[in-house]
Amino acid sequence: MTADGGDDPQAPVRVGVLGCGTVGGALISILDEGADEVAARTGIRLEVTRVAVRNVARYRLPTLGSDRLTHDAHSVVCDPDVDVVVELIGGIEPARTLLVEAMRAGKPVVSANKELLANVGNELLAEAERAGVDLLYEAAVAGAIPLVRPLTESLAGERILRVMGIVNGTTNFVLTRMSEDGIGYGEALAEAQRLGYAERDPSADVEGYDAAAKAAIIAGIAFNADVVAGDVYREGITGIDPSDIEFAHRLGYEVKLLAVAERAGGSAARPVVAVRVHPAMVPRDHPLAGVRGSYNAVFIEGEASGELMLYGRGAGGRPTASAVLGDLVDAAHNLRAGGRGRAAPRARSEIRPIDELETQYYLTIDVEDRPGVLAAVATVFGGHRVSIRSMEQVGLGGEARLVFITHTALEADIQATISELALLESVERVGKLIRVIGPDPDAASGRAT
Amino acid sequence: MTADGGDDPQAPVRVGVLGCGTVGGALISILDEGADEVAARTGIRLEVTRVAVRNVARYRLPTLGSDRLTHDAHSVVCDPDVDVVVELIGGIEPARTLLVEAMRAGKPVVSANKELLANVGNELLAEAERAGVDLLYEAAVAGAIPLVRPLTESLAGERILRVMGIVNGTTNFVLTRMSEDGIGYGEALAEAQRLGYAERDPSADVEGYDAAAKAAIIAGIAFNADVVAGDVYREGITGIDPSDIEFAHRLGYEVKLLAVAERAGGSAARPVVAVRVHPAMVPRDHPLAGVRGSYNAVFIEGEASGELMLYGRGAGGRPTASAVLGDLVDAAHNLRAGGRGRAAPRARSEIRPIDELETQYYLTIDVEDRPGVLAAVATVFGGHRVSIRSMEQVGLGGEARLVFITHTALEADIQATISELALLESVERVGKLIRVIGPDPDAASGRAT
Repeated sequence: MTADGGDDPQAPVRVGVLGCGTVGGALISILDEGADEVAARTGIRLEVTRVAVRNVARYRLPTLGSDRLTHDAHSVVCDPDVDVVVELIGGIEPARTLLVEAMRAGKPVVSANKELLANVGNELLAEAERAGVDLLYEAAVAGAIPLVRPLTESLAGERILRVMGIVNGTTNFVLTRMSEDGIGYGEALAEAQRLGYAERDPSADVEGYDAAAKAAIIAGIAFNADVVAGDVYREGITGIDPSDIEFAHRLGYEVKLLAVAERAGGSAARPVVAVRVHPAMVPRDHPLAGVRGSYNAVFIEGEASGELMLYGRGAGGRPTASAVLGDLVDAAHNLRAGGRGRAAPRARSEIRPIDELETQYYLTIDVEDRPGVLAAVATVFGGHRVSIRSMEQVGLGGEARLVFITHTALEADIQATISELALLESVERVGKLIRVIGPDPDAASGRAT
Repeated sequence: MTADGGDDPQAPVRVGVLGCGTVGGALISILDEGADEVAARTGIRLEVTRVAVRNVARYRLPTLGSDRLTHDAHSVVCDPDVDVVVELIGGIEPARTLLVEAMRAGKPVVSANKELLANVGNELLAEAERAGVDLLYEAAVAGAIPLVRPLTESLAGERILRVMGIVNGTTNFVLTRMSEDGIGYGEALAEAQRLGYAERDPSADVEGYDAAAKAAIIAGIAFNADVVAGDVYREGITGIDPSDIEFAHRLGYEVKLLAVAERAGGSAARPVVAVRVHPAMVPRDHPLAGVRGSYNAVFIEGEASGELMLYGRGAGGRPTASAVLGDLVDAAHNLRAGGRGRAAPRARSEIRPIDELETQYYLTIDVEDRPGVLAAVATVFGGHRVSIRSMEQVGLGGEARLVFITHTALEADIQATISELALLESVERVGKLIRVIGPDPDAASGRAT
């Protein structure tokens, strides 16, 4: 298997690492210091032989000498002293080209690159199948949380109905601070930035792009379908107001940014998939409501298995490196056995548009505080077949804020409602629409609009 | 692979089922009704061809005719029309003999039998390795919750430090009712029996035997060690009083029956393992504290991965059948590929005795309400090097209840303390000792006894 090792079971499997930031550094530390221990536990000795970084001169990991470091990623992929390639560069190019090159050279690859997998994952899976090598990516979604094997192997026979995840630690940290300490969005975000949970430009997190890429990957593995980031309906948390969270609490909810992938018809082999990222009100006794701070969790509803949740660190150097390591051990075992795992390219999935979503909604509307306004607003709801479950009015000086929770309604109808409300003269502002998770308590009883 | 199928990928993999209670019935229903769907999702067509039950005459699953039913489990194992054997009989014999027979005939086996795995698991793993077949047992511990693959594959490279599980739904239901509704143990247990969560003879659950078997299996997979049920220190929930739970709440804890397996020294290849089942006070903000009712959860602490939790249904026909099905798909894939998974027999683990446990303790002592008694009690604690973190006194008519939380102390020392306290004339009763999970808040500061 190695250039000089032949069938020697003690011969190390030589790892080439592309990109050496937080995750790469953690991985190299674990393997440099703990290779004996990993070998004792797994029967696989892993040795990092080559590491590509952007700027060799600036690189300062003490154990990493110039014998292993290079700025030329291509040379790592082609090196005959590299058996397996780990890609931690991020972004689509040159990661894609490098991984294809590695696989074509017969080398299994491990990637933690969500953007890559969420955009060209299927192309890479096809390449892996053609080349007869593994493409493993447990670390690309939800960090240390085991997700790929549970969904594709443990639940292989299961009809998965829905997967809902808190898959972005930054936004969950911000929402947790807002919920537990009553601070505003800006203050919570600034704190997240100070603590290193959020980037200086936080838009990939707070606008939901990061979660949307992960939602696509989760939908792909849950429904064995080719789903890409562009298929994911996406909203971030920037419009969430402390008063929304206050209302959520009063109504028994927590506000969470959820990535939701659900089966929406189709056949077993070709399910229609609905996939979206948006803030949601989660009932306080739901396991996802208790996921605090920068933790991640993925909640799975299966037809026979019932409800499952997988919880843990969704980011960070060592947790993510732990997931990469699990994949590396797997790839090395398969390489030694001359085989590969069962991952295969997937059929393109039909995506249900967000307009066809049916759920309950939370919506606030600031209006002039005078008689007849509520009737006018209620008429707009009713005209679009949106039935109101509860309404509360809060005074705001000369204005009033109307807080609505609807019964289950069609997304197209609530959007039409919002558009029409915005045109009413008495309406000053329509607040953030928040979708409500959980059963409609009055769905079976009579409704009054 | 099948008698007539040869290499035909559409040829069914023929399943023989031993035992057809709740889980077997659910499995057969899923496969009888959903084989096409499972085939579409997994590429594996599973067909239940033979089912052994104790009493054929009494058996009434409508789809199960006499062509498939037999009372002779041996004939199922030997049937040339059975490719894979599922064992759902429970108990050690005849399950052990039947599985060995199946494996020697070259048939992979799937078992949901915790008693079997916790007692002779290693012997069966050795047999599977010799025979070159799979022995899969995801359903034997924590029902539908994926545990074996996450621990042995996703976390293959990880140094697992500790695993703590709520792995018995009956006791968690009872404790949840006591905690949330303030009812007593007897009433909560009677309700669990009424709802079918507890057996008429509940001792296997409430005395912790069921959890201990699962703790042994969990320790085995987490530390790649041969751990058996007899290695597990075990206490049940029968001594828990509503006042213990009331105190737990006041101190910020929930009481849970935990199965704990932890690394307690040794080497990577041969860790010393501590494994025990007992009620514990879990801090209210710990993810395990929020696991309610009959749900199960397994909390994993890894050196690089950090904290992970896997949550779901630990029992029940369909959830357990879902785990069996995942294993069946895996076994069938491996059978088709002419291979097997990586499970191998494990080295016998050194077990750390409970006496060497170091943790914090909750203990109540009912004493005569007169001056000098507290001093006498405190002297006993101090004499055994047990430092007191907090003490509270509650009046009980002519008596007083002293409620202690200790700092981290050695189990041998707290046990010696209890023995000596029981001999004090002024002590009426020593209550249930409950171990406290979580960091000792004052461990680093000075202590006063």
